[in-house]
Order: sequence, then C-alpha cells, then structure tokens
Amino acid sequence: MNNAESRLLNSIDDEFLLSTLRDLIGIQSLSGSETPAQEHVASVLERLGAETDVWELDFEALRHHPSFSMEVDRSDGLGVVGTIGEDLGGRSLILNGHIDVVPPGDTALWANSPWEATERDGRIYGLGSCDMKGGLACILTAIKALTDTRAELRGRVFVQSVVGEEDGGAGTLATVLRGYKADGAIVAEPTELHVAPASAGALSFRITVPGRSAHACVREEGVSAVEKFAIVHRALIELEDNRNRELAHPLYERYRLAYPLSIGTVHSGNWPSSVPESLVCEGRYGVALGEDLDEARKQFEAVLNDVSRTDPWFRDHPPKLEWWGGQFAPASIPEDHFLVETVRGSSADVSGRESIIEGMTYGSDLRLLVHDGGTPGVLFGPGDVRNAHRPDEYVSIEDLLIAARSIALSALRFCG
Amino acid sequence: MNNAESRLLNSIDDEFLLSTLRDLIGIQSLSGSETPAQEHVASVLERLGAETDVWELDFEALRHHPSFSMEVDRSDGLGVVGTIGEDLGGRSLILNGHIDVVPPGDTALWANSPWEATERDGRIYGLGSCDMKGGLACILTAIKALTDTRAELRGRVFVQSVVGEEDGGAGTLATVLRGYKADGAIVAEPTELHVAPASAGALSFRITVPGRSAHACVREEGVSAVEKFAIVHRALIELEDNRNRELAHPLYERYRLAYPLSIGTVHSGNWPSSVPESLVCEGRYGVALGEDLDEARKQFEAVLNDVSRTDPWFRDHPPKLEWWGGQFAPASIPEDHFLVETVRGSSADVSGRESIIEGMTYGSDLRLLVHDGGTPGVLFGPGDVRNAHRPDEYVSIEDLLIAARSIALSALRFCG
Repeated sequence: MNNAESRLLNSIDDEFLLSTLRDLIGIQSLSGSETPAQEHVASVLERLGAETDVWELDFEALRHHPSFSMEVDRSDGLGVVGTIGEDLGGRSLILNGHIDVVPPGDTALWANSPWEATERDGRIYGLGSCDMKGGLACILTAIKALTDTRAELRGRVFVQSVVGEEDGGAGTLATVLRGYKADGAIVAEPTELHVAPASAGALSFRITVPGRSAHACVREEGVSAVEKFAIVHRALIELEDNRNRELAHPLYERYRLAYPLSIGTVHSGNWPSSVPESLVCEGRYGVALGEDLDEARKQFEAVLNDVSRTDPWFRDHPPKLEWWGGQFAPASIPEDHFLVETVRGSSADVSGRESIIEGMTYGSDLRLLVHDGGTPGVLFGPGDVRNAHRPDEYVSIEDLLIAARSIALSALRFCG
Repeated sequence: MNNAESRLLNSIDDEFLLSTLRDLIGIQSLSGSETPAQEHVASVLERLGAETDVWELDFEALRHHPSFSMEVDRSDGLGVVGTIGEDLGGRSLILNGHIDVVPPGDTALWANSPWEATERDGRIYGLGSCDMKGGLACILTAIKALTDTRAELRGRVFVQSVVGEEDGGAGTLATVLRGYKADGAIVAEPTELHVAPASAGALSFRITVPGRSAHACVREEGVSAVEKFAIVHRALIELEDNRNRELAHPLYERYRLAYPLSIGTVHSGNWPSSVPESLVCEGRYGVALGEDLDEARKQFEAVLNDVSRTDPWFRDHPPKLEWWGGQFAPASIPEDHFLVETVRGSSADVSGRESIIEGMTYGSDLRLLVHDGGTPGVLFGPGDVRNAHRPDEYVSIEDLLIAARSIALSALRFCG
C-alpha cells in the first residue's frame, strides 16, 4: 500500500459510519415511502462537499422503458446522485445503494424495534441494517475519507442513493436514463464482503388459482382454491428442483438452490365457513446467469399448462399467471475484469484475508447498470443476505469497517 | 284438509311473498351490519298487526353466557320479535329466521348483482335469497295469511328475525335470554323443504402456523409457513375422513362428509421475495349429533399435537390453535316428535309429495332454541344450502310458495 492509500484508510471516520447508519435506520423508508430518507442522504452528500443532483422521478416516463418494473404504487420518489472529483481522463466509478427496505413483518418477532438501530454483540440491528443501509453508510463514509484527504482522483465518483430496488429497480433505472454511466460500479449490497461479478435474475409473479365457493357444510359441492393451490405449489417446487440441477454454475457452487422459486404471499377466502373461491399467491422465480427471461418465463408457464391439462378442475378453470412487479434480469461481468481485480485486491489488502469471488442468488440493480447503463459492475458490501428480509436483521460492525475501507480504496485505485 | 286450512292456504299472498323477499335482498345485511334490515322487518311485522318487540342487543351481557359466540365485531344489533295470537291453553310456536348474510366474494363472479333480487327461470337470485331471506319472507307471508284469515290459534306464534346467526347465534341467544320460549320452533333455513329434526355442530377455528422468514434468494435459510401449512392441512383432511367414517348417522345417509372440516381463509406473507414467517387460516370443524364439543375439540387438538411431535420444525414451533367465533353445538329432537309430524304432514299436504326427514350438515340456531331455550325445533325452509355461500345464490319460487303455505299450515295445526 502506498502513502496515499494508507492516508485514505487512516482517515476513515468510524464514528461517522456508525452514526450515519443509525440515522438511516431511524428514517423509515419502506418501499414507496422513501422520500424523507432520500432527502436526508442528499443533505449528507452536500455536507460532504459532493455536487448533488436531486430530482423527482417521472414514473410516467419510466413506465415506458422495457427494463422498468415496479410493484409498489408510488406517487413520488427522489433521485439522488452526489458527484466528487472531475474527469481528468481517468476511470469513473458509480457507488450505488438502495434506500428502500421491505416490510418488517410481525414486529413482535424482533428482539428490538426494527425502526431504530440497536448495537449489541458487535452488530447493528434494525430494519435495513444489512439490506442495505449498511452498505450505503459505507459508501458515504468512503466519500468522506476521499474528500477529507483530498484524494487524487483522475475520474469522477458518483454516489447513487436509489429508491425502489426491492420492487423492481425504478430508482437505478432513473439514474441511467438521466445519463449517469461510468467505467465501473460497486453496488454495496450485502455480499459477506465477497466480490460478486454476478447477480441472478428474479421474476415476481402472481398466480390466481380459481376455486368454486360453497357453504362449508357441503364443502364437496365446491372446489377449494386452497386445495387446488397445493397442486400448483408442488409442481413449482419440482420445477425449481429441475432447474437448479440443470442450470448449475461454478459461481454458485455453494448453493443447493442458486435460483430459488419461492411463494412469498398467499391470500384466500373471505369467510371461515365458505369454501374459498380463489387464492392469490405472489412469489419470485429465480433466473440463471445468461438465461433469457422469456425462455425462463416459458418454462414456468409450461408447468402451469401441464397442471391445467392434467387436473380435471384446472382444465376448465386454469390458474391465471401474471408477471408483475420486479422483473430482475440476471447480470454478470467477466471474473477477470479490472474492476473485479481492483475490489478483490482492495478488500484483501484491507482485511488481510483472501477475498472470495462468487455470484449472488438475489436479483439486484446490477443488471440496470450493466445492461441499460453500459457500466460494468460488481456487488460488494457488508452483511449477509441471510440476515435480511427477516426479524432481527443485522450487520456486523467489523464488516462495516472493512467494507467502508475497501470501497474507499477501490475508488482510489480504480479512479486514481 | 278442513275448511279453515283450505281458507288459510288460499289466502297466501304470493305477491307479498315475492315483494317481501325482494325488499329483504335489497337491504344489505352483512354480518355486523344488520340494523336497517331489522328495522324493516320490525315495520313489516307491525303492519301485519303483530305485537312487536324491538330491543338493542346488550353484547356485553350476552358475552358472559356460555353459549355465546360471535366472529364479527358488532357495536350494535337489534332484537326483533313479533307476536300474534294469545295463550288460550294451546301450543305456542316460534318461527325463526336470520337476517344476516355472509360476504358475496368476488361480485364479478355473479351473473347479476348480489345486492338486488333478480327473477330468472323460476328463481329469485341475490345474496341471502336462499340463506335465508327466502325463509324469512315465507314466515312473514305465513303470518300475513294467519292474521288476514283471523286463524283460530290457541297459542301464540312468535316471529323472530335475528342477527348474527352466521357468526355464532348472538341474535337467537338474545331472544332466549329475553324469555322467549315455546312448545315448538321452525327455523326456516334452506332444507330443500325436507324436515330436519337435526342440525350438526360446527366450530370455527383459527390456526397460526409459524415459519421463519428469510430473503427468498436464500429461501432454504428460512422455513416457509406456506409449506408447513400443507402438513397441517393434510393431517386435518385425514381427521375429517376418519371422523366421517366413525360418526356415520342414519339422518345423514346421503352425505359422504356429514361433518366437513373446511379451511375458509388463508393469509400469509407480506412480500413476494421474503419467505413467509407465518400463516393464519380459519375454518370450520363439523361436529356430529350427540358429540360433546370438548371431546371433538380434543380430537382436533390431538392431531395438531401429533403433527407437532413428528415434524422437526413444529416440535419447537408448534402451530397455535384458537377456537374462535361461531361455536355451534349440534342439536336434534326425536324424529317422532309431534312438531316433526306436524311439519312433515303439512308440507306433504301442500306439495302433494312425501316429505323427507333428514339432518342438516350445517350448524344453526336450532341448538340455542333446543338447548338454551328448552324449545324443541326443526329446520324447514325453501332452497338448498348448496346454493348458499356462493355466487348466483338463488331460491326457487316453487319452493317459496310451498314453504310459505307449509309454515302457515304447520302453525295452524300446531297451535290450533
């Protein structure tokens, strides 16, 4: 490590990192309600001396883009990009993080309130701590160190705080359409500090399973949508199993299910003593690296068609499928890309450990940067996605400290 | 048939019957919102010359009665009883009908609006037409004929229009606690004009199936409450099967499932891409004639306990059971009771067909009249429960005409 690098790492402000994360967790930013949190990030970026671009997202215009997808019915949303440095002929870098968080579920299952940061056992607990306000706090801390030390950058660094990642990526798409692109991007999603040059695809779906209602006292006169759903569910689990065997990929070696198919919500019926006349379920369908989205959708549809052909009830009352909400294409860049090497080397230098390269099983905004923005990117950030989307979500403080330093060092090396 | 009987039957006002039913269907009376419809019935009874007793139900007082059960959170509800005749030493008779209806489900599945009566093919369609505004209209029409002809009754006839039958019977319980009892009762539920001296039991339940949430991209890190529910559901279907084989009863000969166990509602999850951390289902559990409610509950609980013992996840996270809302005990009276003979004979004389005696598989307010009110009763009314709790609910006009006449004739014979 050279002097400039050491100086940069020494200037990382851990106090700022933790207090920034605490502030971010404390500002509720459920999907669709991200504006106060975005305003806060914009003001932090301004205080750090970044040139800050804040704009109202035009959902009507975004809606027409082929890569647009959104589940939540948003009326407003802010784009926030802070820029430091200037273009002196070097490489430019995007640091991207989403501000939106998914619902906490039953808050009684949380040991502490999901709505505020709690420090315990070397971890920060709270909704979004891991996914991914932790990563966003690391980005802001890296920027602070870069500006505090007046790091010599030969290209610009763009900090993107985006809305709507969890439900389809409208926020990052908006940055692309506003013209932001760069020579590389780090999306600070939780990767356990592994470097991920690949993010799997995930397609949200909704299936409406028809039944026929009847008074439960003569329930066989009706057709229970709940019982019929069981048939669909079994067929989908089988599809998941087959696909994961057929589509195995070295970047996903440690996963039995690299491309999970999961039912996330089920709603059926309106009276305990009536046979439910329909069931609506929503879920996500994992898509493999390099797999064509339409081809993947066709496989899914074929399973429903099979079920409809073989089940007497479904023959005349087939389940209805909608591809709806988040439609995350898979994305990847070559493992030997300079960006991958830079982040891997930086994080190894910071942590003193070999850095693992592997794919992430989740869909992310990486696809929009790579496919739509023409910006090669990796996922790299603190925390483990296994601790996201569940009670007592947390991120380890050690991860945070390493990630902030690794991101800062990566920026210096990539743009320096 | 004697002269008085012929005169009574000839004076049945079919126009009044159909317009009364149309009016009743047109006044929305979903469980919990029955007051306007009850006010209407009270005013009809007054116009018919009945002595009318209308009172506000005291749910706080009712709640302490061991036979009280209620699913819907009611703030108000009216008791309505109209009395004709006087006590001259003869038998008295209660004619009971509930005004409440269950939700129509997806109204798009209805050919016509559920909220107004439509006549087509000799049927009246509309929400509650069969269950059981048709029966209530027949009762009111029978009363009109009895008063129009100044029928010689030696005992009183009480018309009870009650709320809350579908969700537990609070309305009929209130009439009992107000002191109404009689030598017999006809509850004009849809029986296809069969005479039913027996009504099965039905216990509403709620099961909360625990899971463990996780990001769906690593769904095996979580435990899907939807998948765990499938285990519970299979065990319950098996219980239903066993019980229906073991508890067969001659009054239920034509049913494969005289005592159905049915799941009516299922709700789970809050995000398509999260593994659902819990599932809540509600349903009804059929109870056999003469079966002790606590014994039946124990059988159900034993199945859940078995599941909890054998499934590794459930061992530490057992499903939670609540007996909640409608707790309908079974009820029956002897098949050779004079009331049964009277209604059977009257309906045979009116229709010219042999009248079938059999039990109904649904729970009803009969239990409250029999067990709590000391009033022997039968179910007898127009329509088929197979057409209730489903879209395009209807009652046949022929059934209505026969039922109104049969009820009037039964009252004359029973109380004359």
